[in-house]
Amino acid sequence: MSDTGFVLHGAVTWCEDPKSIRSFPDAYVVCVNGICRGVYEELPAEYANLPQEDFWDKLIIPGMTDLHTHAPQYQFRGLHMDLELMDWLEQYAFPEEAAYKRRLYAERAYDLFVEELYCGATTRAVIFATKHVGATLRLMDLLEETGLVTYVGKVNMDRNVPDYYCETTEESLAATKKWLKKAEGRYERTSPILTPRFTPACSRELLAGLAELRKEYRLPVQSHVSESPQEIELVRELEKGISCYADSYDRCGLLGAEPKTVLAHGVWSDETEIALLAERGVFLAHCPQSNWNVRSGIAPVRKFLDAGVPVGLGSDVAGGSTTSIFTAMKDAVQASKMYWRYVCPDEAPLTLPEVFYMATKGGGAFFGNVGSFEPGYEFDAVVLDDSAYPTMRELTPAERLERLLYLSDDRAIVGKYVRGSRLY
Amino acid sequence: MSDTGFVLHGAVTWCEDPKSIRSFPDAYVVCVNGICRGVYEELPAEYANLPQEDFWDKLIIPGMTDLHTHAPQYQFRGLHMDLELMDWLEQYAFPEEAAYKRRLYAERAYDLFVEELYCGATTRAVIFATKHVGATLRLMDLLEETGLVTYVGKVNMDRNVPDYYCETTEESLAATKKWLKKAEGRYERTSPILTPRFTPACSRELLAGLAELRKEYRLPVQSHVSESPQEIELVRELEKGISCYADSYDRCGLLGAEPKTVLAHGVWSDETEIALLAERGVFLAHCPQSNWNVRSGIAPVRKFLDAGVPVGLGSDVAGGSTTSIFTAMKDAVQASKMYWRYVCPDEAPLTLPEVFYMATKGGGAFFGNVGSFEPGYEFDAVVLDDSAYPTMRELTPAERLERLLYLSDDRAIVGKYVRGSRLY
Repeated sequence: MSDTGFVLHGAVTWCEDPKSIRSFPDAYVVCVNGICRGVYEELPAEYANLPQEDFWDKLIIPGMTDLHTHAPQYQFRGLHMDLELMDWLEQYAFPEEAAYKRRLYAERAYDLFVEELYCGATTRAVIFATKHVGATLRLMDLLEETGLVTYVGKVNMDRNVPDYYCETTEESLAATKKWLKKAEGRYERTSPILTPRFTPACSRELLAGLAELRKEYRLPVQSHVSESPQEIELVRELEKGISCYADSYDRCGLLGAEPKTVLAHGVWSDETEIALLAERGVFLAHCPQSNWNVRSGIAPVRKFLDAGVPVGLGSDVAGGSTTSIFTAMKDAVQASKMYWRYVCPDEAPLTLPEVFYMATKGGGAFFGNVGSFEPGYEFDAVVLDDSAYPTMRELTPAERLERLLYLSDDRAIVGKYVRGSRLY
Repeated sequence: MSDTGFVLHGAVTWCEDPKSIRSFPDAYVVCVNGICRGVYEELPAEYANLPQEDFWDKLIIPGMTDLHTHAPQYQFRGLHMDLELMDWLEQYAFPEEAAYKRRLYAERAYDLFVEELYCGATTRAVIFATKHVGATLRLMDLLEETGLVTYVGKVNMDRNVPDYYCETTEESLAATKKWLKKAEGRYERTSPILTPRFTPACSRELLAGLAELRKEYRLPVQSHVSESPQEIELVRELEKGISCYADSYDRCGLLGAEPKTVLAHGVWSDETEIALLAERGVFLAHCPQSNWNVRSGIAPVRKFLDAGVPVGLGSDVAGGSTTSIFTAMKDAVQASKMYWRYVCPDEAPLTLPEVFYMATKGGGAFFGNVGSFEPGYEFDAVVLDDSAYPTMRELTPAERLERLLYLSDDRAIVGKYVRGSRLY
């Protein structure tokens, strides 16, 4: 089969490391067989015959990864901002998630979530569903249709969850196997991820059972860690003898880099926990807005970065109110400034390159070579029209990017490519 | 002259006090001669002959007040988020403001700012211009055309500002008088407000001169107070013997309730300062996003409220990146949660009714009876279409309002009334 490819022309900006932003006001990004061949100010002769899409002065950036979100909480995004995590789960999240038992509700509700994800700058996402096998498969079907590349998890819970939404250990593991069987061979872009909700809701037996599935099916894992003080206190009561919250996963064999694991939050992670995640190669999903909204606090992101933990950004809908990773970048900068001001004056606030890196290559690494325009990366790109935010200034591509963090909404997104295929 | 009026029909929500939100899913708001006559679930017979505008299920709320913003900084909103206040002023704000010396630049740049204010939910605003008389009058002309009701201030500065943008005390006072003379009788909706930039940039002589103008012309005053630690340190060095930062204004006669004064920020106000503002009846403009972006901190809003200081919200463009007071409401809630978490666990986070009150009646009080649908209030209203944010849920008007804090952009605004006149 001969090569197929194309060239995008426009203003291009991307991040190869957290220290600097690469950008050209007028350049070509080349895609061949779904893989990026790099960015060029002058198009090399070998690509001269590829079809070109001319975006003129529009901004072309790598697709973004949402490393942590809850699809079934989307219906109450922007609502119920009055409680702390544990009460918020009990009063708002669990009752809503339980509704996904009804197929028609799940179908219609997930349609709305998937449509928003499709319209935004996110090209990859790691997603919590509910405990329901049918609804989770329906979510996967809908996501597969969009062309986005995602991991989706049926949620496991066997304790400290209201009866109407809990499972027994056996039910939870059996349903997970059923789900994995049904998902097998069904998707090109949508993969299952093991999803123990969090230690307060998962017995050691359940975690150990999931660890067996992890080994057997070579599956990645997603969960939560050290989000709120009340939650951590409960984990310490439930699981005596752990060195840190994350140890409750580690001792069951759920943390590792191959297959990968991602834990959300780490707001209250101490040195021990950060070192454990670094050692195991576990990804941290930083979800700054959710951490504000349910009053958890501000994660020590720079400590994770310094320790070598791979960090990406998560929208964490509906603790976070929006699926926008632009907003997550802005929130991460703002939160880090308050962390510097009130918690740790030695820890410099996050910079624009750092949050851009996390939003693209940092989180993208959970999917492999994703989130950069370096040669060899899977070709995910988003094309942005920022003309709705007028200014008298001449802006560099990096300045245009910074404005989009603070000003953009889905109107700005006029083109989207995933693995070299154009979605719109 | 006979009465003229109209009735709006839709879902209506408003705040009469900071403790509760009033709302009806299906009601009538009555306006006669520019004044609100109240909200009714059944339209009283006496208003039955007034023309009705039927907004069906759209949400009708009082217009919002932006109690603090800088029109000439709008061009770099969403940019330059990497410095603390004093360096940020020196490197970004002063050079930009200096450009307003050029009439053509000022004209075009202010056009963009005014257009955004016109399109948003703000019906009243208190605005810093630059030191330039010509540009300030042009801004006032443009604002007057929109139908919005605003206070606009020519900025005064005679020290610690780069030469290219500073004034001498005499120049500053003379230019202010010239500006006041030119503005006199020129506007129906646009009023001058005295605008000493802040104590670091204003000598005692300048402040005293402005206080004389305050008395002579019965003019309100706007300025800044206790925004960042570096700034406060400078004030303490410059003005020995003051009891608090605000005392530097007070001892010159610039603080009072009649004519009114509004000070922005108060992030680091202590008990002495809060008590002084309360005693003088000074308004506080709370600008949470700006306080994050230039790393100042989080204002102790509940302490101001408890002390009886009237509090409204400010966008503080371009320390804040957006003119949206919906966003300011959201930011105020989020910031207060982190204040509770990291600074003062006894101080409960701000509630939805509290921030809605501040955004409407709280800030509106700077303009008189403004920001509520109580009978006797000037009729400012905004009509919102939230159908772009789909959900499976049936929402109350208050829940719809809460979502708009977190999800809305200017697309949501489909109708706007100021003093009983429809703008669009």
